[in-house]
Amino acid sequence: MQIVMIGDKIVPAEDVDPVYLDRGTFFGDGVYEVIRSYDGRIFALEEHLQRFANSLSAIGIAGVDIDQVRRRLLRAFDAAGIADAKVYFHVTRGSAPRDRVCTADMQPNFFLTVSKVADNSENRTNGIAVSTHPDWRWKRCDIKSLNLLANVLASTAAAKKSCAEAILVDEAGLITEGAGSAFFAVRGQTLQTAPLTANILPSITREFTLKAGRNVGLEIVEESLTKEQAARADELLIASTTQDIVPVVRFDDKVVADGKPGKYAKLLNREFRSFTV
Amino acid sequence: MQIVMIGDKIVPAEDVDPVYLDRGTFFGDGVYEVIRSYDGRIFALEEHLQRFANSLSAIGIAGVDIDQVRRRLLRAFDAAGIADAKVYFHVTRGSAPRDRVCTADMQPNFFLTVSKVADNSENRTNGIAVSTHPDWRWKRCDIKSLNLLANVLASTAAAKKSCAEAILVDEAGLITEGAGSAFFAVRGQTLQTAPLTANILPSITREFTLKAGRNVGLEIVEESLTKEQAARADELLIASTTQDIVPVVRFDDKVVADGKPGKYAKLLNREFRSFTV
Repeated sequence: MQIVMIGDKIVPAEDVDPVYLDRGTFFGDGVYEVIRSYDGRIFALEEHLQRFANSLSAIGIAGVDIDQVRRRLLRAFDAAGIADAKVYFHVTRGSAPRDRVCTADMQPNFFLTVSKVADNSENRTNGIAVSTHPDWRWKRCDIKSLNLLANVLASTAAAKKSCAEAILVDEAGLITEGAGSAFFAVRGQTLQTAPLTANILPSITREFTLKAGRNVGLEIVEESLTKEQAARADELLIASTTQDIVPVVRFDDKVVADGKPGKYAKLLNREFRSFTV
Repeated sequence: MQIVMIGDKIVPAEDVDPVYLDRGTFFGDGVYEVIRSYDGRIFALEEHLQRFANSLSAIGIAGVDIDQVRRRLLRAFDAAGIADAKVYFHVTRGSAPRDRVCTADMQPNFFLTVSKVADNSENRTNGIAVSTHPDWRWKRCDIKSLNLLANVLASTAAAKKSCAEAILVDEAGLITEGAGSAFFAVRGQTLQTAPLTANILPSITREFTLKAGRNVGLEIVEESLTKEQAARADELLIASTTQDIVPVVRFDDKVVADGKPGKYAKLLNREFRSFTV
């Protein structure tokens, strides 16, 4: 690499800040997590760190000390002093002249932000509209990687239709999950969601939602739903770290049940919040 | 976003260089091109700029002036003064606090490097070994996006087996293309390659290779190959901007034909190079 141009400016290669050569930008070669706190207490920290370690391992980024990640995260969280905080962090494989083939000597880059969790109580009270989008993501959605362009395109398309989330549908017509959330249907006395495969993220909030479901007497069914099944469900829900459990009251152009959040949305949210105190 | 941590260092959000908030890193939300010159002349510039415009449009990045991109590229190329240069550039949607949903007011970031094309004459003379890998990429490989982790993993796995390229195989057992190249088989008097669909990049070198094929009397067949068909072909080839046409002499554990580059590899390369002068 001889010269670099950033915007309109030519820079000799040796003067370029390594951040511009981050493999995160060139390839999305990194993995991330989002963790939140409730009233000053971080929720499910170890579960998230374990998944982060799994993601790193799945793409072969070695040499990241998870204890150091935990220490950094806690230090930043303390420094921010936000009671209901969202902590985002990613590790990329490192900075180097662009080459798809990676080598073991690369030094991973760590980046973290702390911000206030957006208040979504209105969505939880009134429910949200969602719209479906083809699931264009790669075949390893079990890895929480920085390759998120399919999610960006789906989320942006949903937002343009005034929908709060995009629900992704695979080529077989089955719902995988939301672009940034797990997806559930209450059908009779069952709580149904897609099974854990390489096509979806092993969502931690999904696990807690299923636990909440069991606690309120629902039978858990881990089986993918079609769009038609979803549209006819008694209740639909999405769940994510930063939103908890949110009822879905419109699914594409279909009103879900009577168009109001159902009883299980409330019961599940109450149960879920009991895990966080 | 209140605070940011970069490595071990906490930085107030307002002091963070926007490069750290590049949507290219958060989401791979950008597109790229690689163009080369032969002996001081840039090859197929307009074709690459047209594809770049198509990629930008496909992911909804508006407001990038292709004439400005061309001017920047030519200025950097001139400044580098490299006769056989590789010019890489990408545009990301811009820098902003992380949110999947993008908005129209984002200011795209432009980044470009110029370097010397690696000499691959040995590979072109002796041929290369390739290994197959599941095609884990997303469903819009027709867009030349920064979501390249599947390519990184496949290329790195191939390199670990001392192979120069990974050949991607979809779930139906059909070869799509190389992790960084188009893939061809010579079978009798035909030159066969996968058809242009959303599963492969509309490779510009692919087009010139097919043109070369016609010129040397081969019939073009745009039909996907199975691994077994590839292993039994008379000749296998990969082609990319920075490598031209390279014969493949080993395909996984199978020796291709007599293990030496075939006659069409030479004929096609000669024809291809005639386009570049």
